[in-house]
Amino acid sequence: MSRTNDVTSIFLAAGQDPDLINLAGGLPEPSVWPVAELADLAAEVVRDHPGETLGYGPIPGLPALRDLIAARFSTPETQLSRDNVLITTAGMQALELTGKVLLEPGGVIAAQSPAYLGALDAWIPHEPRYRPMKPGSNDYDPFAALDGAQFGYTVPNFSNPSGRLVTLAERRELVAAAHATGTWLIEDDPYGVLYYDGTPLPRMLHLSGAENPGPYDGPIIYMGSLSKELTPGLRIGWVIAAPEMIAAMAAAKQGSDMCTAGLSQMLALRAFQRRIPERILPKMLETYRARRDALCDAMRDHLADHLDWQVPAGGMFVWATARDARLDTDALLPRALEHGVCISPSSVFDPEGRDRRSLRINFTLNAPDKLQEGARRLARAIRALLEETP
Amino acid sequence: MSRTNDVTSIFLAAGQDPDLINLAGGLPEPSVWPVAELADLAAEVVRDHPGETLGYGPIPGLPALRDLIAARFSTPETQLSRDNVLITTAGMQALELTGKVLLEPGGVIAAQSPAYLGALDAWIPHEPRYRPMKPGSNDYDPFAALDGAQFGYTVPNFSNPSGRLVTLAERRELVAAAHATGTWLIEDDPYGVLYYDGTPLPRMLHLSGAENPGPYDGPIIYMGSLSKELTPGLRIGWVIAAPEMIAAMAAAKQGSDMCTAGLSQMLALRAFQRRIPERILPKMLETYRARRDALCDAMRDHLADHLDWQVPAGGMFVWATARDARLDTDALLPRALEHGVCISPSSVFDPEGRDRRSLRINFTLNAPDKLQEGARRLARAIRALLEETP
Repeated sequence: MSRTNDVTSIFLAAGQDPDLINLAGGLPEPSVWPVAELADLAAEVVRDHPGETLGYGPIPGLPALRDLIAARFSTPETQLSRDNVLITTAGMQALELTGKVLLEPGGVIAAQSPAYLGALDAWIPHEPRYRPMKPGSNDYDPFAALDGAQFGYTVPNFSNPSGRLVTLAERRELVAAAHATGTWLIEDDPYGVLYYDGTPLPRMLHLSGAENPGPYDGPIIYMGSLSKELTPGLRIGWVIAAPEMIAAMAAAKQGSDMCTAGLSQMLALRAFQRRIPERILPKMLETYRARRDALCDAMRDHLADHLDWQVPAGGMFVWATARDARLDTDALLPRALEHGVCISPSSVFDPEGRDRRSLRINFTLNAPDKLQEGARRLARAIRALLEETP
Repeated sequence: MSRTNDVTSIFLAAGQDPDLINLAGGLPEPSVWPVAELADLAAEVVRDHPGETLGYGPIPGLPALRDLIAARFSTPETQLSRDNVLITTAGMQALELTGKVLLEPGGVIAAQSPAYLGALDAWIPHEPRYRPMKPGSNDYDPFAALDGAQFGYTVPNFSNPSGRLVTLAERRELVAAAHATGTWLIEDDPYGVLYYDGTPLPRMLHLSGAENPGPYDGPIIYMGSLSKELTPGLRIGWVIAAPEMIAAMAAAKQGSDMCTAGLSQMLALRAFQRRIPERILPKMLETYRARRDALCDAMRDHLADHLDWQVPAGGMFVWATARDARLDTDALLPRALEHGVCISPSSVFDPEGRDRRSLRINFTLNAPDKLQEGARRLARAIRALLEETP
């Protein structure tokens, strides 16, 4: 716990410095938010629905919002109803509840590696052990990884932190492994709409649903969130899963926060009904695509001698790995802060804290000129570190 | 876990029946909410503060709201700053976080007995053992109870479910025991403003602060919430405690939901600044006092042969105990539902589920005529049960 929170403290302290270029977090660009429309909607839902917005709500979420999410994610083969949907206090709570429901103390999680820091945080209280899954690597075997694990954890679309897209073949293999082993498999999908290149790949939820067409009762626990599609501050997420899993997570949610804020839920419902996420998506994609390109261009100009990376096809991050084994990214973080730029070192995404060779760079929060300057500062910090490293 | 959730399922199913008189929950009367004013404020805070309302916020809460809570609860002897305050996703999350921070598996909680069902729920994952504390009973010894416990848990103002007011002498004794043993002591205070008779007693937070005047660093973990003072649907609560405890709970909150909804926090801030809680309090007290009196009058008319109770000086509940040992309140619940009234049996408030002699009756949700009819129905259900019990 201390490792993670030390880094968070460094990030928070760094956030106080207005001259710092923050490439560490996963923050959105606020100018894409439809503020005036959301302000009007907020007043409307309080005025017209005081019971739903201001009163206690049902533990699993407002029925109308659960129905809408069920309809939104249903396909002819994967039929979803309200009973397949839990509304959560953003994606983080979905991860926490999975831990409460599924994790025995010291149990095993088969996790895509490197893994989302927030998920590692959410499961710390259960002191789990991790089996790393690295799709694309030589010794990757999803059946062996999932067999006997308490659950599997993946972020197929632009994994945090690696930015990697899990391929269609790898998705099919993971789904087959979950069905064959009977192990629950989390499909955490905060970045599912953020495709800058190419056509979105099918969700594992739907690949799993196609195995047994009809009402969904399979092993995928799908997690979505409004945080990237609309705004994070409403703290609205959802889980789509077999009804028995939804019922168990709702029982656990009762002891976490009883119910998610009704005002946020009603705003989310109205925003979906008015297709606000669809309306703001083109501008968001255009903005983020240009920023990804600006960051990667600047990295080619300033960082190609020191780092290797792949241009991500979506999401919020570039994952870069040091060419020189002397470049320890834990040691780089304080040096980068001295040079006025903040990045996330790989150790925080490794359950065992051992990977000190890579770093995660965010491109959604800053304008292109800031990203260029950030890359320049990072290059200076790397040179300074290497010069003093024997 | 199954026991608690069975009862919740019964309550939820009962809530579907419009003819049922629900005396089971702890719901407020919505007509006291200033809906139009809150609707206007909701639009205003989104429009004027999109970053705070729609973006990610700091884990421990918006600084301005933490400052306001600190000022609101400071006294000359108990000086509070932002570092003494954590904003939580309603009171339930405060309880959950305490469990995460303080409870070792199987650890001991010294809890006022009977105890709030939600607190028992929040701590289930840690499988704690309970030492019951019954202020006013012969063998009550707060020093012995707190000594070696991981924390103590009390609801001094109109305890849920007992409606009991912990006396000033008992508060002093509890605070002295916490200071002497070094054991953290939770003062859970959702009903602190709901005094219908008499003058509010001092909070244990302030009794503790008076022991060592200055910046607060003592063993009381005070929990407050907007749920009763304003509305529950915003899901806003707060913890006031020593800075080290606030820091530990904020670290735990990171893995629970990252931050509380910004829109709810900004609405809470504006509501406090405009003194909305103070403005609606007189009407709320008048409404609830009249309902308490109506329920207790009806109980005297219809239930005095079967139940003993004390008229509570505040809060939301009357706690009644069966005169006849054959009156098992677990068995009464289904019989009451058949007669069109719902109550909470005492077993759900007993960590060991053994107390089947009492019941909790809510008086805040229903108008006086409904409370009278509810008491009549309950009397019929009790007679029916006793007639068939040997």
